[in-house]
Amino acid sequence: MAVFSVKQILAGVAKVGDSVTVRGWVRNRRDSKAGLSFVTVSDGSCFDAIQVIAENKLTNYNSEIVNLTKDCAVIATGKLVESQGGGQSVEIIADSIEVTGFVENPDTYPVSPKRHTVEYLREHAHLRIRTNLISSVMRIRNTASVAIHDYLQANGFYWVHTPLITASDCEGAGELFKVTTLDFDKLPRDDKGKVDYKQDFFGKESFLTVSGQLNVETYCMGLSKVYTFGPTFRAENSNTTRHLAEFWMVEPEMAFADLNDNMAVAQGMLKHVFKAVLDKNGDDMAFFAQFIDKSVATRLEKMVNDDFEVVTYTDAIARLEKSGRKFENPLYWGVDLASEHERFLCEELVGKPTIVTNYPKEIKAFYMRQNEDGKTVAAMDILAPGVGEIVGGAAREERYDVLVGKMQALGMDPASLDWYLDLRRFGTAPHAGFGLGLERAVSYITGVQNVRDIIPFPRTPKNVAF
Amino acid sequence: MAVFSVKQILAGVAKVGDSVTVRGWVRNRRDSKAGLSFVTVSDGSCFDAIQVIAENKLTNYNSEIVNLTKDCAVIATGKLVESQGGGQSVEIIADSIEVTGFVENPDTYPVSPKRHTVEYLREHAHLRIRTNLISSVMRIRNTASVAIHDYLQANGFYWVHTPLITASDCEGAGELFKVTTLDFDKLPRDDKGKVDYKQDFFGKESFLTVSGQLNVETYCMGLSKVYTFGPTFRAENSNTTRHLAEFWMVEPEMAFADLNDNMAVAQGMLKHVFKAVLDKNGDDMAFFAQFIDKSVATRLEKMVNDDFEVVTYTDAIARLEKSGRKFENPLYWGVDLASEHERFLCEELVGKPTIVTNYPKEIKAFYMRQNEDGKTVAAMDILAPGVGEIVGGAAREERYDVLVGKMQALGMDPASLDWYLDLRRFGTAPHAGFGLGLERAVSYITGVQNVRDIIPFPRTPKNVAF
Repeated sequence: MAVFSVKQILAGVAKVGDSVTVRGWVRNRRDSKAGLSFVTVSDGSCFDAIQVIAENKLTNYNSEIVNLTKDCAVIATGKLVESQGGGQSVEIIADSIEVTGFVENPDTYPVSPKRHTVEYLREHAHLRIRTNLISSVMRIRNTASVAIHDYLQANGFYWVHTPLITASDCEGAGELFKVTTLDFDKLPRDDKGKVDYKQDFFGKESFLTVSGQLNVETYCMGLSKVYTFGPTFRAENSNTTRHLAEFWMVEPEMAFADLNDNMAVAQGMLKHVFKAVLDKNGDDMAFFAQFIDKSVATRLEKMVNDDFEVVTYTDAIARLEKSGRKFENPLYWGVDLASEHERFLCEELVGKPTIVTNYPKEIKAFYMRQNEDGKTVAAMDILAPGVGEIVGGAAREERYDVLVGKMQALGMDPASLDWYLDLRRFGTAPHAGFGLGLERAVSYITGVQNVRDIIPFPRTPKNVAF
Repeated sequence: MAVFSVKQILAGVAKVGDSVTVRGWVRNRRDSKAGLSFVTVSDGSCFDAIQVIAENKLTNYNSEIVNLTKDCAVIATGKLVESQGGGQSVEIIADSIEVTGFVENPDTYPVSPKRHTVEYLREHAHLRIRTNLISSVMRIRNTASVAIHDYLQANGFYWVHTPLITASDCEGAGELFKVTTLDFDKLPRDDKGKVDYKQDFFGKESFLTVSGQLNVETYCMGLSKVYTFGPTFRAENSNTTRHLAEFWMVEPEMAFADLNDNMAVAQGMLKHVFKAVLDKNGDDMAFFAQFIDKSVATRLEKMVNDDFEVVTYTDAIARLEKSGRKFENPLYWGVDLASEHERFLCEELVGKPTIVTNYPKEIKAFYMRQNEDGKTVAAMDILAPGVGEIVGGAAREERYDVLVGKMQALGMDPASLDWYLDLRRFGTAPHAGFGLGLERAVSYITGVQNVRDIIPFPRTPKNVAF
């Protein structure tokens, strides 16, 4: 007998009449008065489970089958037949069901077959993949991640593995995790009494990166089209539904590209990702439509077919002011848009993903390219309804003098990033790139609001369990 | 005029007679007495550069073209014509060459067009992608990485993003980086004078993971086939050609699988990766064959076509003993094979990648499945000629009592991994997995010996530059 995944069987890879084996976890058991049991088995390969019919002639029927509860692990072998009942088209009449593992104390089993809150499930993050909610999210997360690679590879980008441990600090932000092997009880000190990082593993103070961008720019100036895709860190003490201390980000970077090229790639990539999910995860999306937000799939289809709206920061401010809406946060040209502004703009005024461009230079990072007006930089943020910012990007300042001037004006020491400045001294070229937060994108796709339910093991302040 | 990558042009995507634009960096300039210059332009999309012919009628011929040096950035537009000289089939007769960036002081430019040592290039890691050696390595690294995803996705595996920051310690090894936001000058202390990690970001002592395996096992027990693929960390003070403090690893994990399934997937994946490199990076492999090791491509072809040799640890010891070879390290049943043993076995005695199975339990990790003999565990290492271990894997101990007994015998506190043990209490199933070190695999493929030249920015003791 051949082994099939449930996904393969439901897709018709095995034929009616074939002897098949499926392996997975019991989702449900129902006993009929006629002396047989209906056992649905899920292996996580897709949303649906397959029904296995266990007749009481099975040798372990009375000793094991009738004791099966949710998430007992089984290996079921039998004949694939057309289904008698509604629902699925095929089911398996078992010749044998081997139980590789029962569930201890089903009544107190943490992910028993009742409805659990997402907060409760986070406390059992090692078992929550056994719920419909989390397994659907994670299959979609997989589809989205692979679609990102597919899109970028098909468009000539190379995946570059930039380091996570760094002594540089990309954004000039202070919210960094320190990485060390020093013994806290015997911290070495220099002759001024300061901690002597020369004795630390890397010989200097080291951190977890907040972005691979500066590093990947160096590879962009040799391979032309590159991207990073991996975990990124912020030691921000934020307990919101949109923040994680460890999250995944993809950061494409293109040489000889401007803000328009950047917008085109960001939009093309997002549409490709959305389309991949619609094509491959219809079953999971149907679940979200039923239990989370019924518009979730139609919204995604609209995104694939419509172009995103592009609006300059200056116009965005004008439209927000003109709307007459009262905001809690101040609104004026020059302000960093608050989440309420962003959401009102893209949810109410525009009604679809919105690309805001050309922000005031004061509120954006030092490496963003200054526009001719002297006031704004060639930056872009993509805002998604219900989620807010999912992409941040910019054309990079490729002019050595302008970049050094900007760093000095901000009180940065250009010598600390001499290697980054070298790119502007040796064969500089216009270039642009952006970062897409994976969790926020998948949150937008699924309608699942809290990014803690989008990543397998969320890391947030005071939470590093498992 | 349409923009093409050099790769597209050399692959015939643009036709002879087309007006084309290429953008990249000058690899070489040669002036002819006839008043024209031959400028080869590389954009990193493939190994080869394209020749651009600049006639002296170009408006910036005397002011700029004749001053072009290696790695000046240019945008060249012109007509694609059949090449007159040898080498490539096509070249471009320029209508214009715009220089977006010259190279300051070409004579002291760090990656000037002479031969540099790999040690020197590491000190200029931000520019070394502009060399043939590193750009070929990185294109192959990209191919290998994508091929890993392709193989696993095609075989029904889901990519799971396990956390890098953890409070668990997978292998029980002590070589961990600590992750903290505590101020070293004001370390909080509890009432016993110990550092009070409750006040640290995560509320407890936290580290960078040495493996995503334990975490991904939890997802395996729900999705059946999963893998992690990302950076991993070892704070090991090793200055060898095979060790990095931060390196990339792929870790597949399969439910209802044993050691034979594990070997089949590992071998299938490696062969798929090797084949992808042969199919897609022939130009880069030709470079390695010319400058590094002339057998590099034929060796890889052999790997794709031949099955790996499988030998038990017990047989391996016997064969090594019988060989009569003198080793520096002791050799007896029970010893952890030293690198010299592994290399002699796979390079001299076997002559191809070798899978060593069923190691003594004392030298392998606690979670590996104990064999019937009571002495060995269902572990496997794959050894590659010239590199040593590139894969380590095992069937996992899925039996709760056996696993707890093993942990206790090793002095581990089972309560510290209660979540991991839960997988054995609730629907346990046989499962197996392995880890492949990406750098070692690419080192094996390319013949480039030092893993510091396989990763963009190597992190090793006292080295965290860029």
